[in-house]
Amino acid sequence: MINISATIDRIREILEDESKSQLAEELNGFHSADLADIFQALKPEERLECFKQIEEEKAADMIEYLPANLQVEILGDIDTELAARIITKLPHDAAADVLGDMEEDETEAYLDSLPQKFSEELRELMNYDEDTAGGMMTPLFMTVKTDMTVKEVLDYIREKAEEEHMDLYYVYVTDKHDHLLGVVSLRGLLTSPFKTKIENIMNSDIVKLHIDDYRDAISEVFMKYQFDSLPVVDQYNHLRGIVTWDDIQDAVEEETTEEIYASSGIATGDIDEDEILEGSLFTSIRARTPWLFVTLIGELIAVNVANCYGKTLQALPIIAIFMPLLAGLAGNIGTQSITLMVRGLSTGQLTLSSAFKHIGRESIIGLSIGSIFGLLVMVFTWGWQHNVELGLIVGIAMAINMLLASLIGTLTPFAMKRMNIDPAVASGPVIATAIDVLGLTVYFSLVSIYLLKLI
Amino acid sequence: MINISATIDRIREILEDESKSQLAEELNGFHSADLADIFQALKPEERLECFKQIEEEKAADMIEYLPANLQVEILGDIDTELAARIITKLPHDAAADVLGDMEEDETEAYLDSLPQKFSEELRELMNYDEDTAGGMMTPLFMTVKTDMTVKEVLDYIREKAEEEHMDLYYVYVTDKHDHLLGVVSLRGLLTSPFKTKIENIMNSDIVKLHIDDYRDAISEVFMKYQFDSLPVVDQYNHLRGIVTWDDIQDAVEEETTEEIYASSGIATGDIDEDEILEGSLFTSIRARTPWLFVTLIGELIAVNVANCYGKTLQALPIIAIFMPLLAGLAGNIGTQSITLMVRGLSTGQLTLSSAFKHIGRESIIGLSIGSIFGLLVMVFTWGWQHNVELGLIVGIAMAINMLLASLIGTLTPFAMKRMNIDPAVASGPVIATAIDVLGLTVYFSLVSIYLLKLI
Repeated sequence: MINISATIDRIREILEDESKSQLAEELNGFHSADLADIFQALKPEERLECFKQIEEEKAADMIEYLPANLQVEILGDIDTELAARIITKLPHDAAADVLGDMEEDETEAYLDSLPQKFSEELRELMNYDEDTAGGMMTPLFMTVKTDMTVKEVLDYIREKAEEEHMDLYYVYVTDKHDHLLGVVSLRGLLTSPFKTKIENIMNSDIVKLHIDDYRDAISEVFMKYQFDSLPVVDQYNHLRGIVTWDDIQDAVEEETTEEIYASSGIATGDIDEDEILEGSLFTSIRARTPWLFVTLIGELIAVNVANCYGKTLQALPIIAIFMPLLAGLAGNIGTQSITLMVRGLSTGQLTLSSAFKHIGRESIIGLSIGSIFGLLVMVFTWGWQHNVELGLIVGIAMAINMLLASLIGTLTPFAMKRMNIDPAVASGPVIATAIDVLGLTVYFSLVSIYLLKLI
Repeated sequence: MINISATIDRIREILEDESKSQLAEELNGFHSADLADIFQALKPEERLECFKQIEEEKAADMIEYLPANLQVEILGDIDTELAARIITKLPHDAAADVLGDMEEDETEAYLDSLPQKFSEELRELMNYDEDTAGGMMTPLFMTVKTDMTVKEVLDYIREKAEEEHMDLYYVYVTDKHDHLLGVVSLRGLLTSPFKTKIENIMNSDIVKLHIDDYRDAISEVFMKYQFDSLPVVDQYNHLRGIVTWDDIQDAVEEETTEEIYASSGIATGDIDEDEILEGSLFTSIRARTPWLFVTLIGELIAVNVANCYGKTLQALPIIAIFMPLLAGLAGNIGTQSITLMVRGLSTGQLTLSSAFKHIGRESIIGLSIGSIFGLLVMVFTWGWQHNVELGLIVGIAMAINMLLASLIGTLTPFAMKRMNIDPAVASGPVIATAIDVLGLTVYFSLVSIYLLKLI
């Protein structure tokens, strides 16, 4: 891994010296993935200057590693003919994504300037949603027939596989109507006698994707079966393309980001997660307010609960100062529980069938930790306020609140999963609010009954 | 994907009928990854019954997909000779992991019963930490010399690659002392003329792992360069093994889990994350209390802040009921900010150099959302309590608290990153506590100064 900031400093020095040959030498020495990191750290005008010095092959390679907004920025800034040549060098799925992110008239202009076969293939890919198998697949795969021999297939590969982005890990076996029949690995080809018929070494129990499968389902299949690439078929079992694991790697990362955002009450439903971090301010605000409104309503209920105990507060205002302590610790242990359950359900480590076991387990943990912290808080309050009874009430409230919090934190995700709602959605804010409402009720009731004998 | 619960029901019925042939037929029809899912849902005694009916090849395949505790459970329950045969069929890294998870005397017994070459290779792998390149690598790779021709290499592969777990995607080029010189892809071999010398088609700009590289560094390299497999070398550049992307997939998932746990204040440092969810109660409590203690100390400071305004509370106890509302909403927006920053820094979408941009951006968002919610809360309080001034103070406090919360939520992760501390660690609890302390100060000061003119 390279040291980005030192590299950027060096490149800026060369840029100041205006020595193009030195710049070209420096830049072309990097791996394309490193170049992509460097480009992300440069300023737009520096990027353009540097891009001109990179060899075309490497430039196309680097474009693949860049985020969508930079791909469009760079290709829009450079000469149109150069941009078209670079797009032609991209794998189909990457090219389709880049074109899809441009303005519509720009997309059309580029499509018209590309070689006809390539542009037709791209148009087809662009009909599919970027987040489905159809949008992720590449149409470059190798198909053979059942009655070919290993020798014939190897010769065929030697002849056909020059296309740079052709996936070669598997060779797909189809009938004359392009129905997918089976798959042969290169290992199988390279280790079988030349005369073996393909039908004798092909695997016909194929795990395949449907062209409309959505990103989360695809990444689940990849994570489960751990294949390097999977074939994509349409409803008639025609082989339409293949999706490779590196396409999925990005998808898995995006899924995880959405899950993490969702847990903290950031709505990702119809908003792209990149937009929330770097898009317009309005988009960010739109993603962040919905669950804040829910929190607002929840907390207004909490305010009302507290208000019901107005007399209690009037009689003993000191009790108010312990409210943040109780809410803070209960919120913290509740968040721990919900985090463990949501993540466990998401990775598949937990299932609905183990719900009761975990509810029991978390209750014991909540009670144990609650007792420890209840005791600490009791001793602290007693020592500080010189009031045994107040200490006892605050301590008991703490223990009960922490137990309740871990119970709610465990129950909620399982209940949501049972109702087919994503357990991650708004788990953080909802739990915090629920704990505030319940916790205050417990605390004020205890104070009213035992300390003030108000009821 | 199969329907697990329906499948389990069917298998239980067959188990009740005690028809072994039917059970065998049913089970052997599944893909090993599906079988692993089924086994995880079965009860221990059912597992043993079913395992006996699975063909050995498939059984070994399935064992690979199972979590560590089940691997050890099943291999411990079955006949020792069968277990040894199954272990022999596992890839080296999986076999080493399984043996490493057993009791020491069991491990030794198995190692002694395995073929000598295999057991020696396993012993070597087991010397490395499971979470380093040395512990993840397999020693099965194909090496060739620079002066061999493409034809010679292909013949060599045909002869040597029969070993089932040999990785074939790349062929590694070494000198006579096993130093790694370059790599040739199968694509390169299959598309070059037979007489081409390897040195002319090998890539010598190799991305490689060091044998002591830790899991997080390895997954970063894989995510960045998106290779299918990477060579592992020791300090003398001797090729020692290869790590494949599917080993990394699990590592990436574990890294993410640790990151998510860390954010909610669950300590994963020296505790395996599986243990926290399913291990002993004591382990879980040990992982969860440290940051709860920090929260306790933080909240005791908040209690002290509130106590300093004892007179204010005494004079106007109603102000206490708005405390959860202020803390809840500020906590929520602060958590959103910290989540966005921590995740962005973790995926590389954010870097330290963009810190100021994001601090500014989040401030504007915090101020905007804070103003909206401040206004809402002001109107609500005014309408409810018929007190314009109280409404104004609560509303203003809300706006300031939400702005402060998003500012702290943005600053903290960048500051931690700058100090080389993992920004995820305890971000949730720390931010919540900081917001409580600051928020209460703001609120009580406003009330004391403008509402009660106490100061």
